[in-house]
Amino acid sequence: MDIIYALDLAGTFVFAISGTLTAANKKFDIFGALVIAFVTALGGGTIRDVLIGSQPVSWMLDLNYLAIIGIAVVVSLFFKSYIQRLRKTMFLFDTIGIGLFTILGLQKTLLLEISPVIALMMGTVSAVFGGVLRDILCGEVPLIFRKEIYATACIAGGILFLVLKNLQVNYDISVWSTVLFIIVLRILAVKRKWSLPFIA
Amino acid sequence: MDIIYALDLAGTFVFAISGTLTAANKKFDIFGALVIAFVTALGGGTIRDVLIGSQPVSWMLDLNYLAIIGIAVVVSLFFKSYIQRLRKTMFLFDTIGIGLFTILGLQKTLLLEISPVIALMMGTVSAVFGGVLRDILCGEVPLIFRKEIYATACIAGGILFLVLKNLQVNYDISVWSTVLFIIVLRILAVKRKWSLPFIA
Amino acid sequence: MDIIYALDLAGTFVFAISGTLTAANKKFDIFGALVIAFVTALGGGTIRDVLIGSQPVSWMLDLNYLAIIGIAVVVSLFFKSYIQRLRKTMFLFDTIGIGLFTILGLQKTLLLEISPVIALMMGTVSAVFGGVLRDILCGEVPLIFRKEIYATACIAGGILFLVLKNLQVNYDISVWSTVLFIIVLRILAVKRKWSLPFIA
Repeated sequence: MDIIYALDLAGTFVFAISGTLTAANKKFDIFGALVIAFVTALGGGTIRDVLIGSQPVSWMLDLNYLAIIGIAVVVSLFFKSYIQRLRKTMFLFDTIGIGLFTILGLQKTLLLEISPVIALMMGTVSAVFGGVLRDILCGEVPLIFRKEIYATACIAGGILFLVLKNLQVNYDISVWSTVLFIIVLRILAVKRKWSLPFIA
Repeated sequence: MDIIYALDLAGTFVFAISGTLTAANKKFDIFGALVIAFVTALGGGTIRDVLIGSQPVSWMLDLNYLAIIGIAVVVSLFFKSYIQRLRKTMFLFDTIGIGLFTILGLQKTLLLEISPVIALMMGTVSAVFGGVLRDILCGEVPLIFRKEIYATACIAGGILFLVLKNLQVNYDISVWSTVLFIIVLRILAVKRKWSLPFIA
Repeated sequence: MDIIYALDLAGTFVFAISGTLTAANKKFDIFGALVIAFVTALGGGTIRDVLIGSQPVSWMLDLNYLAIIGIAVVVSLFFKSYIQRLRKTMFLFDTIGIGLFTILGLQKTLLLEISPVIALMMGTVSAVFGGVLRDILCGEVPLIFRKEIYATACIAGGILFLVLKNLQVNYDISVWSTVLFIIVLRILAVKRKWSLPFIA
């Protein structure tokens, strides 16, 4: 099992935990928690696959994604208070997750020989729209529309990845540079409270 | 016209009536009622078709589904108070509907030679996500996430159907056993107030 | 560049402006405004493409649509108060937009040799569901379900277009007659406060 696949599963796991915690806050039952965990983790990639016409959608072809989400829900229920003390570890894997989701979504779209602009957009959708769907299903206005958390980091990372790819930099180096870049951007954004201008 | 097709239309009819009554509660106009009736009845199957890549989605190829929904909306408007006295009949056809929707969705997915786990999931999505879409479009948090009404019955019925299929039981017997099983499960769930554990 | 294409872009531009203004009312940031502008302008056509199986969805194959939306967001931010004084011009282009979106969506579906009834429905979805998605993402119950603004005009216009097409009227004449008919219908509807019956 290569390391990118492992980290993709790790990202899925962390997204699913965050979905389960949201469902718990909303007092959903276990069925609701499974749906929200699933949608948070795989919703963005699902929208990407449907828009570009890659069906059956990818998680149907590799049951490890469903399995890891099931495990994440169970783990969240039994170790809820413990998880809430792991905020920093969660943040790290969450950021690795969005970095990888962006790159993997971007690459999948590039394979179709569609414009890199669309690929960049689909990379961002892969990383960000699981959270949008989660918020909609929970009856909340998507947080990311009001207080941009990581879409800009995804877009910036995606652009970096496209540049490195065009310079024919080695694939692994490109991936790790991009993920590291996104992590640094997000940490800076959180520490310095960067935000996009509002438009009231 | 075979009996499974007839009951599929009957299920669609009952789902559309329930959608129209929801729209009436929300004080929507006729256009809104048509959309909500449609989404309640055909939304789950539409999501399934899009996820597995079966397009144009199935209701585009058989106008009887649209016709039956149109009739359901008109009937709901003219006989609203009468329908509300038919709760038990509605409950019965609603349950037959979800049973059939589960089995038909499951079978359609199996034909693509995807895993039975995914087929089970798509059967449940076919039966349940019309209601989820209806609630979202009406500005409500989907009831099924909080108070599980029939997803568990769909999943249990789907598993029974897969087992019977693997045992090579006659198709019609498998279908009727599954539908009957789901009906009994739901009646028991309602009578005994079964529910899934909350995760607060 | 032919005139229908130019007006399609103009309609996209006006829809994107209206989306940006909605996002501004909701105090979204620029990322949120871009998403809402995009969804308002291209959401209806995207749903149509996904339902009929025309993927990658159409805006992925012509970057002018994304560019015009980006420009619309920037223009909206800088000239907000000026735009709000242009209500009548906006109304005109908005109506031309929905007329064209209806016709173009209808034609695209007819090409697949699906029933004209479905084509009419997909035309209406193209014109109307961008606004539905916008309202859902903004946490509002879709306005169009309560106070029908233009779905009826789309449907009536679509029927006229189908009739003219069957009578083998010249294409350009059919398009302009339909658009004009929809404009007149909408102006009458606004002036005379026509509305669909409620179903409470």
